[in-house]
Amino acid sequence: MKTKKQVIFEEAAKLFQEKGYSAASMRDLADRVNLKASSLYSHIKAKEEILQKICFDNASHFTQGMDTVEKSGQSPEEKVRALLRLHLEIALDDPTSITVFNDEWKHLEEPHLTRFLNLRRDYENRFRTIIQEGIASGVFRSVDPTVALFTLLSSLRWIHYWHRPSRKIDREALLRDVTAILLNGLRSGK
Amino acid sequence: MKTKKQVIFEEAAKLFQEKGYSAASMRDLADRVNLKASSLYSHIKAKEEILQKICFDNASHFTQGMDTVEKSGQSPEEKVRALLRLHLEIALDDPTSITVFNDEWKHLEEPHLTRFLNLRRDYENRFRTIIQEGIASGVFRSVDPTVALFTLLSSLRWIHYWHRPSRKIDREALLRDVTAILLNGLRSGK
Repeated sequence: MKTKKQVIFEEAAKLFQEKGYSAASMRDLADRVNLKASSLYSHIKAKEEILQKICFDNASHFTQGMDTVEKSGQSPEEKVRALLRLHLEIALDDPTSITVFNDEWKHLEEPHLTRFLNLRRDYENRFRTIIQEGIASGVFRSVDPTVALFTLLSSLRWIHYWHRPSRKIDREALLRDVTAILLNGLRSGK
Repeated sequence: MKTKKQVIFEEAAKLFQEKGYSAASMRDLADRVNLKASSLYSHIKAKEEILQKICFDNASHFTQGMDTVEKSGQSPEEKVRALLRLHLEIALDDPTSITVFNDEWKHLEEPHLTRFLNLRRDYENRFRTIIQEGIASGVFRSVDPTVALFTLLSSLRWIHYWHRPSRKIDREALLRDVTAILLNGLRSGK
């Protein structure tokens, strides 16, 4: 059974996705969860609190995934494959929250904004290091590792917009096709 | 020499990029272009007019590019290469406008929103047909053409965020690396 606070966070994520964070008001949120504004404030101090939770919960999910991948002792290719799976699974399992995480983080206030950008930069640096290892070992083609990094990260960003339960998409087929395109694209030796 | 109206459109695009369309006001815009609000309204009827121009100018640019590619008589592979170049060039040449086009179109009012979505769907369908032709001829790997389409389109969306004149990026190197990853990723025969 969900707590009232959980319901509020979920409805807030949907509201931010639909209207954008700036345009969404605490009053809109109160209406959605059938509370008076005064009652809503007993659960949540401010809109910003919800945005922070969404952004840092997702960031933490990615960081933990990266920790696991780094410790795995796999080849750079298998590490990239595991990270593609991580991104796809987060996007498919929690599309509303990932939309807010991707598009609305810029509305975080300091010091949270700086902390968020540092987490993101750290994640990107660790991903880039894996790509560089693959290039250095000759498994990946000789491309600018930053160009490769952002091409990969960006290429996954449509999934949470596109995927709806009604599409009955086969997760494994999606993962297989996306991974085939991106990993074969990175591989050298053609 | 730019007309006052051109300056207003350019500053509006920057303003929408920085604050988001919803949060940006005509008063903000008036301040940016050193006009009184009443004078601004003699040039521009409403914020919506600016958003429409940005969205439909960009849509028209993509549609014209697709017309040229379709008429070229090239192979599916060369057509995809030309479309990747089209996307990269638009993103590099007009990054502010493309940001608004990508992120703020959802604020268009009807009937413009429907018209915009129809143009986008038409473009996507034509791009998907080229991918399908490549798969049917065995040049591209056997993947879901929609998954391939959105992976390609999405993979280019970081460029306008990332590219700044200060980075002195080599356009041709960027195009070469992105094209190598995506076209080799699509190719079959591995």
